[in-house]
Amino acid sequence: MLGIGVIGYGYWGPNLVRNFSQAQGARVVAVCDQRAEQRAKVERVYPAIKTYADVDEMLRDPAVDAVAVATPVHTHFPLTLKILQAGKHAFVEKPLTSTVAEAEQLLEEAERRGLTLMVDHTFIYTSAVRKIKELLTNGSLGTLYYYDSVRVNLGLFQSDVNVLWDLAVHDLSIMEYLVEQEPVMVAATGMAHVPGRPENMAYLTCFFDDNLIAHFHVNWMAPVKVRQTLIGGSEKMIVFDDMELSEKIKVYDKGIIVSEDEAEIYQRHVGYRTGDMWAPRIDNVEALQIEANHFVECIATRQRPLSSGESGLRVVRILEAASRSMAQHGQPIKL
Amino acid sequence: MLGIGVIGYGYWGPNLVRNFSQAQGARVVAVCDQRAEQRAKVERVYPAIKTYADVDEMLRDPAVDAVAVATPVHTHFPLTLKILQAGKHAFVEKPLTSTVAEAEQLLEEAERRGLTLMVDHTFIYTSAVRKIKELLTNGSLGTLYYYDSVRVNLGLFQSDVNVLWDLAVHDLSIMEYLVEQEPVMVAATGMAHVPGRPENMAYLTCFFDDNLIAHFHVNWMAPVKVRQTLIGGSEKMIVFDDMELSEKIKVYDKGIIVSEDEAEIYQRHVGYRTGDMWAPRIDNVEALQIEANHFVECIATRQRPLSSGESGLRVVRILEAASRSMAQHGQPIKL
Amino acid sequence: MLGIGVIGYGYWGPNLVRNFSQAQGARVVAVCDQRAEQRAKVERVYPAIKTYADVDEMLRDPAVDAVAVATPVHTHFPLTLKILQAGKHAFVEKPLTSTVAEAEQLLEEAERRGLTLMVDHTFIYTSAVRKIKELLTNGSLGTLYYYDSVRVNLGLFQSDVNVLWDLAVHDLSIMEYLVEQEPVMVAATGMAHVPGRPENMAYLTCFFDDNLIAHFHVNWMAPVKVRQTLIGGSEKMIVFDDMELSEKIKVYDKGIIVSEDEAEIYQRHVGYRTGDMWAPRIDNVEALQIEANHFVECIATRQRPLSSGESGLRVVRILEAASRSMAQHGQPIKL
Amino acid sequence: MLGIGVIGYGYWGPNLVRNFSQAQGARVVAVCDQRAEQRAKVERVYPAIKTYADVDEMLRDPAVDAVAVATPVHTHFPLTLKILQAGKHAFVEKPLTSTVAEAEQLLEEAERRGLTLMVDHTFIYTSAVRKIKELLTNGSLGTLYYYDSVRVNLGLFQSDVNVLWDLAVHDLSIMEYLVEQEPVMVAATGMAHVPGRPENMAYLTCFFDDNLIAHFHVNWMAPVKVRQTLIGGSEKMIVFDDMELSEKIKVYDKGIIVSEDEAEIYQRHVGYRTGDMWAPRIDNVEALQIEANHFVECIATRQRPLSSGESGLRVVRILEAASRSMAQHGQPIKL
Repeated sequence: MLGIGVIGYGYWGPNLVRNFSQAQGARVVAVCDQRAEQRAKVERVYPAIKTYADVDEMLRDPAVDAVAVATPVHTHFPLTLKILQAGKHAFVEKPLTSTVAEAEQLLEEAERRGLTLMVDHTFIYTSAVRKIKELLTNGSLGTLYYYDSVRVNLGLFQSDVNVLWDLAVHDLSIMEYLVEQEPVMVAATGMAHVPGRPENMAYLTCFFDDNLIAHFHVNWMAPVKVRQTLIGGSEKMIVFDDMELSEKIKVYDKGIIVSEDEAEIYQRHVGYRTGDMWAPRIDNVEALQIEANHFVECIATRQRPLSSGESGLRVVRILEAASRSMAQHGQPIKL
Repeated sequence: MLGIGVIGYGYWGPNLVRNFSQAQGARVVAVCDQRAEQRAKVERVYPAIKTYADVDEMLRDPAVDAVAVATPVHTHFPLTLKILQAGKHAFVEKPLTSTVAEAEQLLEEAERRGLTLMVDHTFIYTSAVRKIKELLTNGSLGTLYYYDSVRVNLGLFQSDVNVLWDLAVHDLSIMEYLVEQEPVMVAATGMAHVPGRPENMAYLTCFFDDNLIAHFHVNWMAPVKVRQTLIGGSEKMIVFDDMELSEKIKVYDKGIIVSEDEAEIYQRHVGYRTGDMWAPRIDNVEALQIEANHFVECIATRQRPLSSGESGLRVVRILEAASRSMAQHGQPIKL
Repeated sequence: MLGIGVIGYGYWGPNLVRNFSQAQGARVVAVCDQRAEQRAKVERVYPAIKTYADVDEMLRDPAVDAVAVATPVHTHFPLTLKILQAGKHAFVEKPLTSTVAEAEQLLEEAERRGLTLMVDHTFIYTSAVRKIKELLTNGSLGTLYYYDSVRVNLGLFQSDVNVLWDLAVHDLSIMEYLVEQEPVMVAATGMAHVPGRPENMAYLTCFFDDNLIAHFHVNWMAPVKVRQTLIGGSEKMIVFDDMELSEKIKVYDKGIIVSEDEAEIYQRHVGYRTGDMWAPRIDNVEALQIEANHFVECIATRQRPLSSGESGLRVVRILEAASRSMAQHGQPIKL
Repeated sequence: MLGIGVIGYGYWGPNLVRNFSQAQGARVVAVCDQRAEQRAKVERVYPAIKTYADVDEMLRDPAVDAVAVATPVHTHFPLTLKILQAGKHAFVEKPLTSTVAEAEQLLEEAERRGLTLMVDHTFIYTSAVRKIKELLTNGSLGTLYYYDSVRVNLGLFQSDVNVLWDLAVHDLSIMEYLVEQEPVMVAATGMAHVPGRPENMAYLTCFFDDNLIAHFHVNWMAPVKVRQTLIGGSEKMIVFDDMELSEKIKVYDKGIIVSEDEAEIYQRHVGYRTGDMWAPRIDNVEALQIEANHFVECIATRQRPLSSGESGLRVVRILEAASRSMAQHGQPIKL
């Protein structure tokens, strides 16, 4: 039975405690939070779980084999480093760290100690994203042309990170999982509308080695909530709308036809093709439950997680470069 | 009675002939098209209109006082120059020309000869865009924060211009009219997926002197047709969805609240505010009819058109710079 | 070449003239309208067509082989009777007549004289309805359980007929074509909200010999325009939404499972099954063009039209009984 | 402190326990369920609550002042009668009882003993329905013309009641609250598609003294989930779509204009009027929490609940008559 500790019992922590409590072969043994009123909540609902105000103290608890971190971004690195140095496996909220250098140090530490380091890229464990992965893997879409996502709403402003680190991180983790190709260059633009705060809206383009292109639009100050991704291939195209209650994924049998006809070549040799639409059934399972089980199983079998530290690093690498590009009004930055 | 000639009787020309035929104080006297079968169509429906195969010949017709140009982009400049040099007023399809230099020459020519030069920015004459203009003018939105538009669908590829010149030109002409502020810098990215053809999808950011930002997403290869614009202000925000049959414009009483409270300043001093939504009634009138009347009236009263040659030039200036930025992967270009 | 005359050049007449003008093997030779200004419109656009103020005069024109009737409902019967008695084929707007007795007399007259009598049930010639017919014919839906349609909007009130005769007639003609089964009983309720006017909203249920049930909701006083039909079968279900620009038809692989398990029989032996959704591609052709060609072909080949006089009669039979039931607050009426 | 007991810990019971636990001035002291595994669930989450397998035993517990009943419909009457006879207040799931006679007996019993009898018409405590009530009360809609609701989806079939008692009960309780007028006659049609089971789809019309009309469409076997109500008034009309995440209520400034003009009287003296649409902001509060507090307060202040036993009786009266009408294919039944 794997003993799990959770650091941070704010917005996301309770979800981690609940899901790890139900994971096969694991139980939550400890929760750490500096705030007494948060610890009290844990004690009320889960009398069997030990609570700590101090991280170091919790890390000395021999019942704790692995630790999940659900704290603000800038604390991910120092906490996770401590966890690994204490010889415990780590499950870290996204983004993995605030910088590439930090992420690389954590990966190295985990590698050297033979510990599992997993980042909580929750979306890649959803039924919808897994279904899209299946369609991409079996080649249904043909050559991949573009990946375009929009994630906007009226949201609480983060004080320590810009909107890319808060919202685009979701889409980058999904793209990273689906596309299996690393961008070679990024260009980002954005704007801060509240004095003294980071950018609250941003547009990010990722370039790849071939003519695949990806774009991310994120905004904390939009009047409507949009969660929409278009994925264009030479054979089929997908619209993934996460605000739809059913039919989250629509697969369009549409595309272009490049004419080989010599006669037409000078006028309009690109036509279009339009066919049926198909919306595959999506199971309704809680992604975090699947992910919690996956973490426990990866530790047991020494298997690399789907959302490994490496995935976390790749996403942070894009975010870091994108923030740099955004500060220079879209100046392209090589990765 | 103003005599109007139309050059080009392809996709758009018939709309011009029909609308100018119905305009107050004007009548269509001539249509010019190189293709005999297109001229035959005119003759069948409008026996009273004279048809020409040759532009110069039509320009010598003294019944022609003003000429509308509905031909491919690269012909706009030479044709319009001829029209003005023949002492006739010109109404030109968008984009006005292929380069800034050409547009400037046309403006100068029209200015020197005291002729009216108008560009067919049709959208600014629609009831929806005029209603938004009204809301912006009366200050309902507060300080303008952003302008974000998406215009994507599966469309026939143009052979001579990239997707910005074909699709973004609509949104730039709308923004130009609504915002009344010129961007100072642009950054654009895009991709061509058909060998030997221009870019079929593009993302364009416009920066302004203050912290207003505008973004345009255009794509000829999208599975769904989207025509959506978000306009964010400090007091209210607008969603303009041109695919909606009714309720094209939704005005959201939403925004952010920056707390002045010292105590809160370190945690979450930006909250959000959410109120009612309101969809004003939009009249159902044909924009081109209004525009045709406006052209005739501007000639009669020597008034400057809403979509003047200057507007046309401003849009071409952005398009030219955007294309340059796109060729350099988003490198920002000052205007 | 079949010579066609059209009676009534108001709202629908021009569509008939245009489409019969383009039909294979036919030409429009005459148009009859009492109103001089309507005849003038015809003369302007179609100088080759003869116009008449008097129906009898037009019927004496030997160039007229068949006549299309696009006049108010109560005139359908006397006009069509005259047409048939003059030995000419008839194409009549829906509903065919105001009463069953009238419809029967027209059928008899056409039968005896060997003339084609067709009713303009336009919707059954649309690509969408034909696609649904294909799905029903190939058995995809399994046993048919229900047909449910809603056709509501804010519309101009008719003075001579209630809303069933104006709106439900569309849906009854579609159902009549799709289901190929005649209802045995109807029950209808409705209400008139304007003093001295017929019912402006109504609900109609049709019962069949088996446990198929159909329902129609029509309303001239709804704030939104809805054109939606649900068709439920034991294997699949269809949602037909005619307000959708694309994806008008959605086929759901959903249904119920009746458990045979003895143990479960007392608790919840009906479960449900949910699978993929599929939206077949719909061609974009003008239904009236197909219908006009069909009329001409039926006359030439002495074939019975899809929307035959018999179909027209069956729809009128339901409407007549439904109006009677509505006057008695839903009292069921046997057909 | 009011001591509350809950009977039935199946689907809805846990919601009652959670909400009454948080209600002001009350605490849940007992839960009764025959199933040991359900009692075990209570004991795990709420160690302070006493559990009972036997209702009579729980009713003898002096700590229990009021009892909430969340059991199958046919048990509501005997259980609630026992509760009242034990001198305790009762909160009963909808529908209140299976027959009018039973409901009347419960009302009489509660009345005689001075006990509070409340039925759980949850929807009338939602922010959306309360906002509509506000609009109706302040006269915004003008004269009420119609109430039309659709509640369909693919749902588990009930074994003991037809779909009216399961789904239409929600809409009838909403209408009962909003309209404050009792129907005088009903007519209903429906069909059972599973042998040996009650009707799984139904259409119900309610007639009132004036020309208000109400209609309810309910279906357990629809491919899509619809929760939509249209409310038409002479001045304004409402669309209430409970599947919308935001903008649940849309108020349309639309209607008809009856012309007084003598000249027009014979042609088209009814025109239509169309104005803005407005979607009021809806608070996001849990209806059951408000309702639980209301029950506790009504007991304390001896005030009649909004969803009183009388409301419950009125709804059962409609359901009983509707079932009777449905068995006779729409035969109207006077109330």
